[in-house]
Amino acid sequence: MLLYIYLIAITAEAMSGALAAGRRNMDLFGVSLIAFVTALGGGTVRDMLLGNYPVSWTQHPSYIYLTIGAGLFTMLVARFIHHLHTLFLILDAMGLVAFTVIGCDVALRLEYDTPVVVMAGITTGIFGGILRDILCNRTPMVLLHELYASVSLLVALLYLGLMELGVDHDINLLASFSAGLALRLAAIRWSLSLPVFSYAPGRWDD
Amino acid sequence: MLLYIYLIAITAEAMSGALAAGRRNMDLFGVSLIAFVTALGGGTVRDMLLGNYPVSWTQHPSYIYLTIGAGLFTMLVARFIHHLHTLFLILDAMGLVAFTVIGCDVALRLEYDTPVVVMAGITTGIFGGILRDILCNRTPMVLLHELYASVSLLVALLYLGLMELGVDHDINLLASFSAGLALRLAAIRWSLSLPVFSYAPGRWDD
Amino acid sequence: MLLYIYLIAITAEAMSGALAAGRRNMDLFGVSLIAFVTALGGGTVRDMLLGNYPVSWTQHPSYIYLTIGAGLFTMLVARFIHHLHTLFLILDAMGLVAFTVIGCDVALRLEYDTPVVVMAGITTGIFGGILRDILCNRTPMVLLHELYASVSLLVALLYLGLMELGVDHDINLLASFSAGLALRLAAIRWSLSLPVFSYAPGRWDD
Repeated sequence: MLLYIYLIAITAEAMSGALAAGRRNMDLFGVSLIAFVTALGGGTVRDMLLGNYPVSWTQHPSYIYLTIGAGLFTMLVARFIHHLHTLFLILDAMGLVAFTVIGCDVALRLEYDTPVVVMAGITTGIFGGILRDILCNRTPMVLLHELYASVSLLVALLYLGLMELGVDHDINLLASFSAGLALRLAAIRWSLSLPVFSYAPGRWDD
Repeated sequence: MLLYIYLIAITAEAMSGALAAGRRNMDLFGVSLIAFVTALGGGTVRDMLLGNYPVSWTQHPSYIYLTIGAGLFTMLVARFIHHLHTLFLILDAMGLVAFTVIGCDVALRLEYDTPVVVMAGITTGIFGGILRDILCNRTPMVLLHELYASVSLLVALLYLGLMELGVDHDINLLASFSAGLALRLAAIRWSLSLPVFSYAPGRWDD
Repeated sequence: MLLYIYLIAITAEAMSGALAAGRRNMDLFGVSLIAFVTALGGGTVRDMLLGNYPVSWTQHPSYIYLTIGAGLFTMLVARFIHHLHTLFLILDAMGLVAFTVIGCDVALRLEYDTPVVVMAGITTGIFGGILRDILCNRTPMVLLHELYASVSLLVALLYLGLMELGVDHDINLLASFSAGLALRLAAIRWSLSLPVFSYAPGRWDD
């Protein structure tokens, strides 16, 4: 079940990467690379942080084909994609939540402390998008806009909290998933956001 | 002793990260992440380069709370922070020097060659700031301005040189620390800098 | 033989890094660091991805001196370098091809699957340039322009294909090398490029 959601998620993330690459007028190769990095970069950074070798996708070459294929497919259908706007946002939200849970599971298996498990979940959830934005030379959107990264944090805390309380794993998954998805979709619908910190550069560090 | 300086240092670095995030109008989450990465990113890159697993901060979850707490605290006191300008620069300089020495020690313990030990010291000293600037989509300041990264290089060379000469470790620490701090503060006071390389793009690679 | 080409390659890459740093008016230290990262960053990212510790250059400190030396030397001769334009592009193309083959060899030795071997070759070939461009705060050129990254892909596929067919290793090296070099030089000469994906930002994700 989580596997299917994961496959949908990396496909959606690859497509979002391809669109970002298209906004930078990248070539076929650039589109493929950004699609791949957006989809699998979060898990890669997590594995490298935790010393979890071999890195996950190197054991599943089919993920490489899937994400690059999704990126190239996006080039073909880009002109129609705004009709799929809502679907796309839902898939992306599912990806965020699924990545977070999977990231927590990896760190739990390696017996890291709880705060590190939370960081691993968030890293898996948001670092693909951060790498995408760095490669496209723009400030990472997940640090700027709406409730996005915070959804990842909430999912990680809820998932670990319910686990601690001894809740059945399937029910836990369902609850964490639903709560995360609901919060993310509510954030999109009503433009929920965290307080923003605006600091005007002063004399002291310019 | 080095531990206390280290704790002060990561706090100061986290605050500098939070201010940079504020200049990009990031939200609470973005501020926390940039604070964390600025403070602990240098050591993380060093550990990943050297294969020093588990990465240091994953064994000290309190560092996560400390750096994120410092980042959020900075949001509250940002309007007063220019009054603390001098204190802040001194804390940052202490951080640079402490990080460098600690980075060298990690590589020495893993028995890397001297040039790698120096690189590990510099990486620990400056990569937090480089990651902060990459995440804020600006050219890394440490590669542009004043004697900053060079202070890290000098401290690493002095520390290893005195060690080679058999100088007592505490005296070595004190000497390296004082020299690095003095050079950094002198660089700020008199705007010391290295020669700059300005290359105007020619036809050949545009 | 491959070693000599490799040494020429990292020198050429270090010089291209130094020129990019010069365009950002970096100081001596910035130039050295960018030269080092451009030359050895691709192999470093590959080693960290594959868990191939210790990272290659940490076992060859002379590479540190060579790349930093090449960077500083570039500062001295920058005003004459446009006369060497053609030579420089050839050296850079040799570097791209040599890095790719070396990257494949490392992943083969670690017994990764073929698609991962190809990714390791490409990573080694192009990530030094990507890191250079990220540190200089610009969109990575290899994802935008001409046949460059694609040459790396072709070389990796040809090299592994001929290996699969049981072709003698020296002949394989010669063939992959010649084909890659020829394609890259043809791409420069006739401005060959892949199709570009241009996506204008729509309402849906702005």
